[in-house]
Amino acid sequence: MRLATVAHAGGTSAAVLRGEAWHALPAADLSAFLRTAPAAAAAGLAGGAIDGAVPVLPLPAPGKVVCCGLNYADHIRETGRELPSFPTLFAKYADTLTGPRDDLVLPRGLQVDWEAELAVVVGATLRRADRAAARAAIAGYTVANDISVRDWQYRTLQWFQGKAWDGSCPVGPVVVTPDEVDPAAGLDVLCRVNGEEVQRDSTRTLVFDSAELLAYVSTFTVLRPGDLVLTGTPGGIGAARDPQRFLSDGDLVETEIQGIGTLRNTVRLTD
Amino acid sequence: MRLATVAHAGGTSAAVLRGEAWHALPAADLSAFLRTAPAAAAAGLAGGAIDGAVPVLPLPAPGKVVCCGLNYADHIRETGRELPSFPTLFAKYADTLTGPRDDLVLPRGLQVDWEAELAVVVGATLRRADRAAARAAIAGYTVANDISVRDWQYRTLQWFQGKAWDGSCPVGPVVVTPDEVDPAAGLDVLCRVNGEEVQRDSTRTLVFDSAELLAYVSTFTVLRPGDLVLTGTPGGIGAARDPQRFLSDGDLVETEIQGIGTLRNTVRLTD
Repeated sequence: MRLATVAHAGGTSAAVLRGEAWHALPAADLSAFLRTAPAAAAAGLAGGAIDGAVPVLPLPAPGKVVCCGLNYADHIRETGRELPSFPTLFAKYADTLTGPRDDLVLPRGLQVDWEAELAVVVGATLRRADRAAARAAIAGYTVANDISVRDWQYRTLQWFQGKAWDGSCPVGPVVVTPDEVDPAAGLDVLCRVNGEEVQRDSTRTLVFDSAELLAYVSTFTVLRPGDLVLTGTPGGIGAARDPQRFLSDGDLVETEIQGIGTLRNTVRLTD
Repeated sequence: MRLATVAHAGGTSAAVLRGEAWHALPAADLSAFLRTAPAAAAAGLAGGAIDGAVPVLPLPAPGKVVCCGLNYADHIRETGRELPSFPTLFAKYADTLTGPRDDLVLPRGLQVDWEAELAVVVGATLRRADRAAARAAIAGYTVANDISVRDWQYRTLQWFQGKAWDGSCPVGPVVVTPDEVDPAAGLDVLCRVNGEEVQRDSTRTLVFDSAELLAYVSTFTVLRPGDLVLTGTPGGIGAARDPQRFLSDGDLVETEIQGIGTLRNTVRLTD
């Protein structure tokens, strides 16, 4: 199943795709829907088709957005590091997120960089979960771009201030349930800037997979339906290029994951 | 004024202290109150005295809890470092917080350490605020202990996973408005473990003061009424001692800030 939050003439609605049409689910958005029903129940709860439905940010109100860094084995090896024993984690806010077609509005003069990522949507409450429980609690997968303000990220040892700019992280366009996509089998993760491919790798090479990340995080903090865990980015970021390359006003950033969909966001740098 | 969320026979209420008695404010807790009225309006909105009122976690639902590290000049100098140009920031969750008399319940076998801190309560929405606007938006000050799980904090470069354990960070017991306390003039910050003083410094030596931290954070993410900013801890943490010292089951941690109040929390380590 493909789930989304869609905008329509009357507002927004959680929705499930049947054929080419989005059908309404009984909640104003997918965050609200997942608090009341498991993702797997969506098929049985679908109402009528929604005219003119357009997918927007699928999870508008996650209580937690936990991000993993340094998680693609090929990329880690190419940088000469050893594979990590523990996931490197940091946090974003719901305010950090934006929709799959929204502009990325940031102040001029920052080093704005791309990070295509698979995002895992939590579908059930998880506390000190083991891997099996965590796996069963995955509502689905979506696409994210952990757009990073590198100069702020590296001002201090803690990355947070470069990772939590409001409206900087596009997510969507849809959430695909685990019966339809399997990151462990390998989904291509791509980023293009103005049509030029700048990142491509496969989720097959993730060091910590989705279930492992959810279980690990749930050791110290509860995860709830609608929470998001971003699984890290492959090689090819602008900051690691020689010369370094950052996003400019007007750049089109496309973030794609095979079997899920594509984010298309234009960078808007303001004074 | 001294503001709080108090528990009573009928539930909880936001409250303001008059003499020795807590008087009800028209909200179920201080987070909810600050979303509807500025802290300064509390005096005029107070209702009747509440029988048997006991201060609990004053801000039960902050959207954002931003923490600053490495912020006490004397402590930084004693470690041989230079004063930082930018604040080191990381995030906690509302779930990380607990009340001023609550037990600190954590799994056995972790390196649990203390960090007494002044916490700033945001009283108005702040976006790209300057220092003056940030100063005017301070609802008040409270006491926090940024209890840290050191072995998890240092598993990777990012501290977050050692700083976001559910129920690990006591806050309270009251929020004191800025007309009554001035951290810039110097408030003693203390931590005691089983009665032995382990930290003592003055907020006078903070490198980044409250207004500066709020303004800085608001550059990248909006702050809203009830959000919390923790200002960092002075020297004397257990991990920096020789030999290192961590908290044990049954230890009483008292965290005090002059003119505000004292947290009293007992460590409970569970299997």
